[in-house]
Amino acid sequence: MTQSKRDARPSVQDVALIVGGGPGISSSCARLFAKNGMRVAVAARNPEKAALETLEKMHGVRRFACDASEAAAVEQLFKNVVQDIGRPRLVVHNIDGRVPGIFRKSVIEADPIMALETLRSAAFSAFLVGQQAARLMLGNELDTNGAKGTIIFTNASAALKGFPSSGAFAMACHAKSGLAQSMARELMPQGIHVANVPIDAAIGWTQEDGTRAHRLAGTTVDDNMADPDHIAETYLQLHRQHRSTWAFEVVLRPWVEKW
Amino acid sequence: MTQSKRDARPSVQDVALIVGGGPGISSSCARLFAKNGMRVAVAARNPEKAALETLEKMHGVRRFACDASEAAAVEQLFKNVVQDIGRPRLVVHNIDGRVPGIFRKSVIEADPIMALETLRSAAFSAFLVGQQAARLMLGNELDTNGAKGTIIFTNASAALKGFPSSGAFAMACHAKSGLAQSMARELMPQGIHVANVPIDAAIGWTQEDGTRAHRLAGTTVDDNMADPDHIAETYLQLHRQHRSTWAFEVVLRPWVEKW
Amino acid sequence: MTQSKRDARPSVQDVALIVGGGPGISSSCARLFAKNGMRVAVAARNPEKAALETLEKMHGVRRFACDASEAAAVEQLFKNVVQDIGRPRLVVHNIDGRVPGIFRKSVIEADPIMALETLRSAAFSAFLVGQQAARLMLGNELDTNGAKGTIIFTNASAALKGFPSSGAFAMACHAKSGLAQSMARELMPQGIHVANVPIDAAIGWTQEDGTRAHRLAGTTVDDNMADPDHIAETYLQLHRQHRSTWAFEVVLRPWVEKW
Amino acid sequence: MTQSKRDARPSVQDVALIVGGGPGISSSCARLFAKNGMRVAVAARNPEKAALETLEKMHGVRRFACDASEAAAVEQLFKNVVQDIGRPRLVVHNIDGRVPGIFRKSVIEADPIMALETLRSAAFSAFLVGQQAARLMLGNELDTNGAKGTIIFTNASAALKGFPSSGAFAMACHAKSGLAQSMARELMPQGIHVANVPIDAAIGWTQEDGTRAHRLAGTTVDDNMADPDHIAETYLQLHRQHRSTWAFEVVLRPWVEKW
Repeated sequence: MTQSKRDARPSVQDVALIVGGGPGISSSCARLFAKNGMRVAVAARNPEKAALETLEKMHGVRRFACDASEAAAVEQLFKNVVQDIGRPRLVVHNIDGRVPGIFRKSVIEADPIMALETLRSAAFSAFLVGQQAARLMLGNELDTNGAKGTIIFTNASAALKGFPSSGAFAMACHAKSGLAQSMARELMPQGIHVANVPIDAAIGWTQEDGTRAHRLAGTTVDDNMADPDHIAETYLQLHRQHRSTWAFEVVLRPWVEKW
Repeated sequence: MTQSKRDARPSVQDVALIVGGGPGISSSCARLFAKNGMRVAVAARNPEKAALETLEKMHGVRRFACDASEAAAVEQLFKNVVQDIGRPRLVVHNIDGRVPGIFRKSVIEADPIMALETLRSAAFSAFLVGQQAARLMLGNELDTNGAKGTIIFTNASAALKGFPSSGAFAMACHAKSGLAQSMARELMPQGIHVANVPIDAAIGWTQEDGTRAHRLAGTTVDDNMADPDHIAETYLQLHRQHRSTWAFEVVLRPWVEKW
Repeated sequence: MTQSKRDARPSVQDVALIVGGGPGISSSCARLFAKNGMRVAVAARNPEKAALETLEKMHGVRRFACDASEAAAVEQLFKNVVQDIGRPRLVVHNIDGRVPGIFRKSVIEADPIMALETLRSAAFSAFLVGQQAARLMLGNELDTNGAKGTIIFTNASAALKGFPSSGAFAMACHAKSGLAQSMARELMPQGIHVANVPIDAAIGWTQEDGTRAHRLAGTTVDDNMADPDHIAETYLQLHRQHRSTWAFEVVLRPWVEKW
Repeated sequence: MTQSKRDARPSVQDVALIVGGGPGISSSCARLFAKNGMRVAVAARNPEKAALETLEKMHGVRRFACDASEAAAVEQLFKNVVQDIGRPRLVVHNIDGRVPGIFRKSVIEADPIMALETLRSAAFSAFLVGQQAARLMLGNELDTNGAKGTIIFTNASAALKGFPSSGAFAMACHAKSGLAQSMARELMPQGIHVANVPIDAAIGWTQEDGTRAHRLAGTTVDDNMADPDHIAETYLQLHRQHRSTWAFEVVLRPWVEKW
């Protein structure tokens, strides 16, 4: 297969679904996928956020409301997306899921209810989304890379290392890695590319005016922080890998990050 | 510190609590700890099991009822144990937690309710038990090894590798590893030894008549299966390690196991 | 930084050096890099091989003779390359180094002389090449991705897992991983991207006539084997990653590979 | 098998060989093994060191001269040990191998000759010692734990993580881990227990007068440093593990160590 044939790949227009919607990785993915000719849907608890409205206005991205930790809601989401823009060949699970009550809490202080909520939001939702994605994709045709689809799980440093005062989040991120690994071993031989992408960094996104921003207002953002526009490029490359050479896990970190 | 002083260590009688009670690792631990002079408690959903009654009769082990995936129940358990036999210096979390509905199920078949139940039973219960154990132990005196206590998490092969058709269990076991690692980094510098012990094997336990048995009746049990009596020895050695040389993770597997 | 600016990146023509020269990954890299406008050099013990002559004729690739396990030879190689085509910004170490005398030999049978030779050919040569590459690149200007250069180590399954009857090769591949990791932690904050790419697969390359071939003549090659043309694409993507999101390790394996 | 039977295990007197001889782990092992009734040999480049003379005088330990990075020397060592005190059932490879010229050197500064020397001293010697040990042990009778013998490799933090300015040592330590893993997978099913024990800490040993000392004179040694007397206990426990539950890798670190 030649390089040029591969680049021309999506003879039929690709459909991408991004679960989790914020101004960072989800927005960057939605923009980049749309620019590359895909029909794109983003699902979020609250799809009325300004960031998502901008995506719709500027890039034609479809918005869906979904609590991804509810099985019925996730099942319905996939039905709605298929009906609206078609069967996804690329599904990104991009939910961090950390509940404020566990943030930087020692294991003796962390609220158990919030620890369980974090497990549900971050890991169980990945199971639900991965399950629906797999069910759908197994029915897809092979594309020119020999794939039926790609499922990508965004993950965090806590998937690589259990940091102190981070027990509940370490549980959730490790759980997501374990799920991704199991799904990769199960689904790759059936033609579905599964990838786990721990971002070992703070994330500073690019705003519409070109400047970069961070969750904590006033933070100076430089290339010491992961730029979600570049994360999105890696996701697209993963989606376009030929099945003779699939990567399962890619850890992305800025050049100056300690690890 | 000399070897002989260390062996004489428990000047005050040690208290051990084992959460999860079956005829395998829990029973072996209870027996071995009791033989080594500890006061021992075992908690199980159903403490009326024959295996636990035998432990009580033969070794004076105390039995407690506890659903370890309920925060209030775990809190109460620790209160009851302290009142009954004293403050634990050794706590073992020995709950597998696999719910039948996910066993050998592909990710597209596994019942989401049971996947969540597995996360709760195996991983969230570890959080609850670990939290209560840490709270208590931080108030303990140092023993002659410089420790305030030991928390051991029994884990499984699925913590090391996400096998196909095992997504929900891979999530739960990885979650437990992530929790254990975070707790180790947080609590070791405070004098609490935290260990994660994945048993990479089927387990065949020793019955009172000296023969060995396995969960699936009729299985031939040889030393191709991990013997819980030997697992218990490793737990006791971990509990007795000096804090200058603590092991966090020990994977135990039989000589013929493929890995 | 916009996507289009990044793609236009090499305002000055990039120079790539590939150490190790065979019909597989080295040839695919040389072809792809040349097609993307780089000046390319390939170094091999025997640069008279047909595969390399074809690269020169078809793609203008420069050939150099070098025993990469000799410090003086590697130093000279870099001098020659700089003089001939300029300072490399991309260096690929692509030497397998397995000596026949250790292949599938149990640890009691493997010839110690060949075990040491394997360590020298595979791992020590990586040290020498990495050292010269780092020395040179630290003097490079930053490119538009904020990098002074990229050093990529091709590695093998034996870097991920020490297989039985493979002790000497496991030593060499693990050594290469350890080196790569140390260099990444040291050089990334200085602007040099270091990557380790274990190929967890047999490799079947594409011949000039478009059919695929394998080291063992007569082997049927399908996409069950890693295609070096696709491996080369990953290398190019790694070279073009922005320093806000560098990947250190990427394992590539075919969809049907067991792991 | 009961606990008491296992403790009585060495019906025939065990023979232990420790390769590498200093005042730290080697001395602690030699003392502990001798106290537990084994016949013990220690091999070192220079067996005339004071530490080894003390071991001989106080504990009857036999001393042998051996450059463990020379194949013929290692072969001869094993012959001499067998002739002198019998066939070893426990072999410890305890050579650090770091050559001063690479210590805390960046990859661009490290002397290649010393990098290769480090690979030979630390990793290739492990291959040679492991090979001879395996050859001998395969001819041993099974002991009461079902084992023909135990081979333990002492390793370092650099086996777990490639630190900056530590490339050559990272290579050597990773190589040793790869070798150990391959040998474990190969030899365990043949009855030989292989273990890799990275000590993730500085080591401060106990002197004959009971005070503790460190390689750098004047360093204050507390339990922030690994105590080789306790490391030796872990080695003895590994040697005595029943083959139904063998541990391959045990990382030992002090309670306050960062990791």
